[in-house]
Amino acid sequence: MPYTPVWYMRQAGRSLPEYWRVREGISMLDSCTRPDLITEITLQPLRRYDVDAAILFSDIVVPLRAIGVNVDIKPGVGPVIDPPVRMAADLESLRPLEPDDVPYVTEAIQALVAELDERPLIGFAGGPFTLASYLVEGGPSKSHDRTKAMMYGDPELWHALLGRLADLTISFLQIQVAAGASAIQLFDSWVGAVGPDDYRHAILPHTSRIFGALETAAIPRIHFGVGTGELLGLMGEAGADVVGVDWRIPLDEAVRRVEPGKALQGNLDPAVLLASWEVIEERALDVLSRGRTAEGHVFNLGHGVLPDTDPDALARLADLVHTASAR
Amino acid sequence: MPYTPVWYMRQAGRSLPEYWRVREGISMLDSCTRPDLITEITLQPLRRYDVDAAILFSDIVVPLRAIGVNVDIKPGVGPVIDPPVRMAADLESLRPLEPDDVPYVTEAIQALVAELDERPLIGFAGGPFTLASYLVEGGPSKSHDRTKAMMYGDPELWHALLGRLADLTISFLQIQVAAGASAIQLFDSWVGAVGPDDYRHAILPHTSRIFGALETAAIPRIHFGVGTGELLGLMGEAGADVVGVDWRIPLDEAVRRVEPGKALQGNLDPAVLLASWEVIEERALDVLSRGRTAEGHVFNLGHGVLPDTDPDALARLADLVHTASAR
Repeated sequence: MPYTPVWYMRQAGRSLPEYWRVREGISMLDSCTRPDLITEITLQPLRRYDVDAAILFSDIVVPLRAIGVNVDIKPGVGPVIDPPVRMAADLESLRPLEPDDVPYVTEAIQALVAELDERPLIGFAGGPFTLASYLVEGGPSKSHDRTKAMMYGDPELWHALLGRLADLTISFLQIQVAAGASAIQLFDSWVGAVGPDDYRHAILPHTSRIFGALETAAIPRIHFGVGTGELLGLMGEAGADVVGVDWRIPLDEAVRRVEPGKALQGNLDPAVLLASWEVIEERALDVLSRGRTAEGHVFNLGHGVLPDTDPDALARLADLVHTASAR
Repeated sequence: MPYTPVWYMRQAGRSLPEYWRVREGISMLDSCTRPDLITEITLQPLRRYDVDAAILFSDIVVPLRAIGVNVDIKPGVGPVIDPPVRMAADLESLRPLEPDDVPYVTEAIQALVAELDERPLIGFAGGPFTLASYLVEGGPSKSHDRTKAMMYGDPELWHALLGRLADLTISFLQIQVAAGASAIQLFDSWVGAVGPDDYRHAILPHTSRIFGALETAAIPRIHFGVGTGELLGLMGEAGADVVGVDWRIPLDEAVRRVEPGKALQGNLDPAVLLASWEVIEERALDVLSRGRTAEGHVFNLGHGVLPDTDPDALARLADLVHTASAR
């Protein structure tokens, strides 16, 4: 590419007025199971921003719901799962995922690929720690107490749970790749709650199996979590081709923590978009400059677009990334 | 000391049944303004654990309430502030703190020092970013959007706000030292939401002024925040004698990030306490072992004691720290 590519986590969705218009009267999870809505919402940001990829509109709990887990996304709260998964017997509810469980995903991706022409579509799945946390806690959690109690205290159950979640995630991503996704991002959003030794023993084997199962697909595999400064090297070792970085660590320092041969993605603080254009421009140029030390850099925010973000600022930012990085 | 000292953040309070007994029918903030309750709650953990310090029972919003800010601590939510502080005119509500505003703190500390004999009492205050976040957001926040929008977008207002909060904190800590506190901890719990460059320019000058104002007191100054792996060196530079470390970074790696001459405090994951004693013991010994690379190590958890923690495990842990580190 003649410039640094750019896309935004959560570019589709809550920050766009046209998103709220098509969602009117439709719950979040219902909108993730209707091919027409998935397609429309995925395409909406591409009509505004000259971004270099679309990201499938979905949610990390979609495959859980598809296999029959009782999960709902409560507005202002997040995913709520009832009953939670806390004992070996509870694992039975986590059966394998088949393509027939998510026909809407296949259908939407096929429609999107036809529409997008050459522009890549990034597939989407939640990572094992984050899925485990929602299942074990039964909902969002600040400190993931019960989840970590299982991880520390009952490694056998923990690995059985993460093994099932890895199976589910592999199937969900393979279905997306078969339908035409040309890259995937594994969002292990909350894995930064774990230290590096625990990541290596309790999580990496499962993440590694997920990325390994996608090896033959020969597509870029992106891995992202929040607050993962100490884990970036391990997230690369797990098999990601592109390691996502939040804003807490300067991108050039992140480069030093990841083994050679990996690209980095990030890492403008989404809250910077709430300031004036002068501030946004200065910060974005700084990220681009630090990103030049990486073997490859995909410009992105350090986490999802915030709800109050002005879409015009994101449009201008995508253009800035292209012009400022043009070679 | 012939062994590694140990205390626990939140050792007093929500994990102890005797705490809930004395709090019955009394709101959190009211309990922080009654000398008899402050004294009793501060002493409760010392009857159970052979810890090497007491920490004043208080809350970071206590000095705000003392100068007339309308703040309440809502159970299950946290501090709620109404109206929030968002414009220059709002700063007028943040007047200086006088000893007469917090007579209950002086009285409780004097009673505690008499009771504690040789055992140190650690004083307590919130750090500038964390206080600013509660004031600007009007309550707890996951991503501190408005706070960072001010920090990035209106540096003049930001520094005026943090200047007032630093004044308030200096007074609050000086009052505690005058009453007999023999160390202080500045809790900037959420400062890990900020990257190192922003920390250096937007926060460090204020933190540095707070620690500087306590220089003549010649007491240990501890500084702690969650998720501060990239900030540890700067937190030391700001003037802390002891840098608190959460569990996301191995303690020996934290040692490498802090300049020589500083001690470290931490860093057992509080969730480890929810596992079996065998797991707790193994993890605690690992922390002690890594802590030997520091110029000084105060054993602690990497964040506050979780509500469901078994007090007996904490008692056993304090003893383990003493025996295993005995020289």
